[in-house]
Amino acid sequence: MNYKIDNLQYCNWSREVFKINREAGLDAVHVTLVYHEDYDEFLTRVKEWNKHFKENQDLIFQGKTFKDIEKAKKQKKTAIFFGFQNCSPIEDDIKLIEKVYQNGCRFMQLTYNNQSLLATGCYEKSDSGVTNFGREAIKEMNRLGIVIDMSHSAEKSTLDAIEISEKPIAITHANPFFWHNALRNKSNELLKTLGDSGGMLGLSLYSHHLKDGENCKLESFCEMTAKTCEIMGVNNIGIGSDLCLNQPDEIVEWMRNGTWAKKKNFGEGSKTKPGFPKQPTWFTDARGFKNLENGLKKVGFDDKEINGILGNNWFNFYKGI
Amino acid sequence: MNYKIDNLQYCNWSREVFKINREAGLDAVHVTLVYHEDYDEFLTRVKEWNKHFKENQDLIFQGKTFKDIEKAKKQKKTAIFFGFQNCSPIEDDIKLIEKVYQNGCRFMQLTYNNQSLLATGCYEKSDSGVTNFGREAIKEMNRLGIVIDMSHSAEKSTLDAIEISEKPIAITHANPFFWHNALRNKSNELLKTLGDSGGMLGLSLYSHHLKDGENCKLESFCEMTAKTCEIMGVNNIGIGSDLCLNQPDEIVEWMRNGTWAKKKNFGEGSKTKPGFPKQPTWFTDARGFKNLENGLKKVGFDDKEINGILGNNWFNFYKGI
Repeated sequence: MNYKIDNLQYCNWSREVFKINREAGLDAVHVTLVYHEDYDEFLTRVKEWNKHFKENQDLIFQGKTFKDIEKAKKQKKTAIFFGFQNCSPIEDDIKLIEKVYQNGCRFMQLTYNNQSLLATGCYEKSDSGVTNFGREAIKEMNRLGIVIDMSHSAEKSTLDAIEISEKPIAITHANPFFWHNALRNKSNELLKTLGDSGGMLGLSLYSHHLKDGENCKLESFCEMTAKTCEIMGVNNIGIGSDLCLNQPDEIVEWMRNGTWAKKKNFGEGSKTKPGFPKQPTWFTDARGFKNLENGLKKVGFDDKEINGILGNNWFNFYKGI
Repeated sequence: MNYKIDNLQYCNWSREVFKINREAGLDAVHVTLVYHEDYDEFLTRVKEWNKHFKENQDLIFQGKTFKDIEKAKKQKKTAIFFGFQNCSPIEDDIKLIEKVYQNGCRFMQLTYNNQSLLATGCYEKSDSGVTNFGREAIKEMNRLGIVIDMSHSAEKSTLDAIEISEKPIAITHANPFFWHNALRNKSNELLKTLGDSGGMLGLSLYSHHLKDGENCKLESFCEMTAKTCEIMGVNNIGIGSDLCLNQPDEIVEWMRNGTWAKKKNFGEGSKTKPGFPKQPTWFTDARGFKNLENGLKKVGFDDKEINGILGNNWFNFYKGI
């Protein structure tokens, strides 16, 4: 059985988006519920999702384990797995980790760009690694079954997390630094350590993470995929598109700024390009998975490898959560 | 005019304690309102203090500027200045700094032992210094007039704060590491940099910060004071006793553990000595200021210097807030 999984989307959710994901054949999507929200605000996001589940039960349902991906496949629906891009919903309270788990959280980034109470983000000047609270949080996430996601974290913090965690961790959405030197992309050393530890990298289709941005060529993306497989193994790579379909630009402003600064930060953008970047023409939404399939074939991947990258590798990873 | 100031107390507040502070002749006390409380919980602490002010208006009132210390002296009362031992009340929101200021906050530690969103605490394995949010927070504290307090912070973070802050910072309650090698005590290099920048050190009378703990000799404390003056200048040293009068042991447990760990942490204590330590016999409460006066005289300080250490230095520092 082959599964198709996009392991990171943060769209402006609507029936239209759920339909597109079904057209793309996605059996599972890991969706971002929060960036800067606290626990109560997270519960509001859950309520919004419960409304989506009710109104679109012919297309989606909430996923909690890998079995829900199998179920989705059978029912031709998409299983939706909840995740956080920051640890803000657990505030400063270790006990909230169990509560967010009970409310469906299955992925949590220890940090989003800046320092958090758990670890250092990739936009800080200096990286002290996983903190005292971070070590306790990782233990608790391991116990419950919440994946440690280090997509927006700094390098030492990520290496620490790999070492401390008893289960493999994930970088759900990022690309290798060798291909495009964005702050958010990852070094070869880190990718090798991640692969060796059984962890997963979800390749991102967000233009700021792509070589040549929105003009990135499919061939270049697929060649990068091949080189990344040489570094970390063909079974440890999947897709985490970072698609933000239909989101207005104030959302990316809020992602970057939260409430921590009075002046505006442009993150991966710039003063002249402050909004969301355009997607490359071959991946404007999840239906681009078809183009990825063709592109990966052209650079020499066989069917099993392609099916791995487009979903089966994530499926196998979900089995271990 | 000579002022007597204890620049850190966290007592179990009662009329009895306010009376003792008056007997000791204290014109001002910087009191800790929060360790781990969020913004709403801070407002609850403010309400409790408003009750104290109402019920004990013959003894205390709220201090907001150095003029309130002058007023307290004239009225034979103690001006109470609010401070935080952690930045938890500002949560992740730069705008809350102005709100805590409006509610009387005049000192805020950037961190309490562990990593915070602003800086690294002295109990972390590694210290990344002041964070992105921390830099913004320092600017805002400078603008409003909230003193940056680094008593429980790690060394690089403290050096960063001294460099970033446009106003002198304070270490309201700690001792030099050369005298007693507690994690919380400070290196000579740090103390020199602090003194050179116009910052203040409040010497602590809390037994875990004292050489020989509760058996510490007054003479030893006063000799340490003399050596510390050689390092950082006689005008940059005051008292921040860290008195926790009448507090039950569960309070120190809560200070150390907050809600960040499931297992118990003993902080400066140990499994066999988990509670508050005893005070040295010559400083069981603020009336010990009299003993300090005598002790400092014996090791060779003149009256002006002694008056500086026991309050005038803090008074001058308050003028610059």
